[in-house]
Amino acid sequence: MELDTYLERAGDRIDRLLDRYFGQPVGELNRAAAHLLLAGGKRLRPALMLLAADAVKRDTSDDLLPAALALELTHTFTLIHDDIMDRDTFRRGAPTVNNKWDEPTAILAGDVLNARAFSFLAGAIAPEAARLRAVGMLAMTCDELCLGQHLDMTFASRDDVTEDEYLEMVEKKTGALYAASAAIGAVLAGGNEPQIMVLHRFGLACGVAFQIQDDLIDLLALPGKTGKDRGSDIREGKATLLTILARDRGLDLFRFRHALSDAEIDEVIRLLEEHGVIDEAQRRARKIVGDASAHLQVLPDTEERRLLLALGEHFVSREA
Amino acid sequence: MELDTYLERAGDRIDRLLDRYFGQPVGELNRAAAHLLLAGGKRLRPALMLLAADAVKRDTSDDLLPAALALELTHTFTLIHDDIMDRDTFRRGAPTVNNKWDEPTAILAGDVLNARAFSFLAGAIAPEAARLRAVGMLAMTCDELCLGQHLDMTFASRDDVTEDEYLEMVEKKTGALYAASAAIGAVLAGGNEPQIMVLHRFGLACGVAFQIQDDLIDLLALPGKTGKDRGSDIREGKATLLTILARDRGLDLFRFRHALSDAEIDEVIRLLEEHGVIDEAQRRARKIVGDASAHLQVLPDTEERRLLLALGEHFVSREA
Repeated sequence: MELDTYLERAGDRIDRLLDRYFGQPVGELNRAAAHLLLAGGKRLRPALMLLAADAVKRDTSDDLLPAALALELTHTFTLIHDDIMDRDTFRRGAPTVNNKWDEPTAILAGDVLNARAFSFLAGAIAPEAARLRAVGMLAMTCDELCLGQHLDMTFASRDDVTEDEYLEMVEKKTGALYAASAAIGAVLAGGNEPQIMVLHRFGLACGVAFQIQDDLIDLLALPGKTGKDRGSDIREGKATLLTILARDRGLDLFRFRHALSDAEIDEVIRLLEEHGVIDEAQRRARKIVGDASAHLQVLPDTEERRLLLALGEHFVSREA
Repeated sequence: MELDTYLERAGDRIDRLLDRYFGQPVGELNRAAAHLLLAGGKRLRPALMLLAADAVKRDTSDDLLPAALALELTHTFTLIHDDIMDRDTFRRGAPTVNNKWDEPTAILAGDVLNARAFSFLAGAIAPEAARLRAVGMLAMTCDELCLGQHLDMTFASRDDVTEDEYLEMVEKKTGALYAASAAIGAVLAGGNEPQIMVLHRFGLACGVAFQIQDDLIDLLALPGKTGKDRGSDIREGKATLLTILARDRGLDLFRFRHALSDAEIDEVIRLLEEHGVIDEAQRRARKIVGDASAHLQVLPDTEERRLLLALGEHFVSREA
């Protein structure tokens, strides 16, 4: 099977189940909680969880589908709360919860999804010890997601963020939930310790690469393709691997803050290419995923392992 | 042992453990998360959990002390988020997290405590099946707490809240966490199904009575005793059992909205007493706790059962 086909099918399965559990919300708070969840999304975290489970034990993922929702619910809960903090008004082409309703409702809607994530995981079809471990992993992960988001916020007022600090932030803010997705899949499917460990590391690498690629797409993507403004990170003076690598090479991107015309973005791209920054960022992302992928050899040689490797490749090459 | 002595000792044990886990916070977010948690509080929910555990199985509560933190963390997480929604600036004599830090930090601080609550519970010293059930109960409870808080918010714009609606809101907003505290204590201590059920019901009754008593204290307490303004509920036109019972007796308390002088509060009290509203509210609270207490007969006849009954009595008679 092609990766695209796998992801599409997994996404459809997740969408159908989300619709079953959240499609007929009762009351305004449940409507607010379902809003962003049902507004679309690539469902990459539950897909990774299902793939990891099947890579450990063939055909186990049907049973684990409700548990996979926990990862999407957790992701959506953090998006809803992040949107409040960033005062964002649109996401995925729809008004954010804090925009369509209000901040108090958005805080509660996030909290509701957070609670439901633990419910789905605690109720998974898996041995008690595995479910309990998965719950512990999710709890630790939620903790890390908060620390990552907080780090990201503190970076906004700094222009001296180091590469290590940036990577630590990305590991917590984005990597942790991908790591948990893969590891929880392995745990619930009955994987052994080495399998759980390498899948955790692989998920972490995928998440970090996903974010680096996101930074690249923000700058390089054609206008309109991502639904975001091209060059918004540089306009906002945000710390990304690109801006940090540029600064360490003596490039001053701060003069491009605020109004960035298309011509200026093209100049930034030219400058970054000239100084090898774009190549270097891509190289880092590829190395992070490559190193983690090498360890997947402890998994049985199956189609699912091949799909996992393809997913890692997808994360460093996607264009939107 | 007297109930006061028991509560004091349990509070001290909880305080010491909280200090051990949260007393040396690393980083600003952890400082914000620890702030309200260490600012005091009566620790009634963990105390109820420990008492319920010991009532089911003697001397089990030492092992369950870390798990009891989960209830206090959950309570504090909801307070931090409620303070954002209500734009409150002081609580327990200290600035709220949204005041001392800012709203984004307060959202994350609440989320961190929410995550840690699940960590402590998943890591409890108890059989896996019991821990898993406790986690599921806590998740369902968090869901209910959100619905309760949301109901409470919607009541602010209504003057036709019925007694049943009010009690439903209080069951969710306050009762659910007391119910979970007692039931989780019973579950982790290895209680049987009837024991878990009656303790859940007893906790729920205690929580509802606690809230009704809170409404009474808000009106009747001597100025300065509670740390709140006397009569603040009536000044804000809030739906409470008192205002609902008054309205159903044809009393118009809305004319007392906004500025309430001491003389006006005294008049409100006189009116409510004259029409039997205060007696009726106290009678309701006593009946709720009394009915639930009667079922505690399924527990072994121990000092802990006697203390549980005394705790129920405390909830309907406390003056601050």
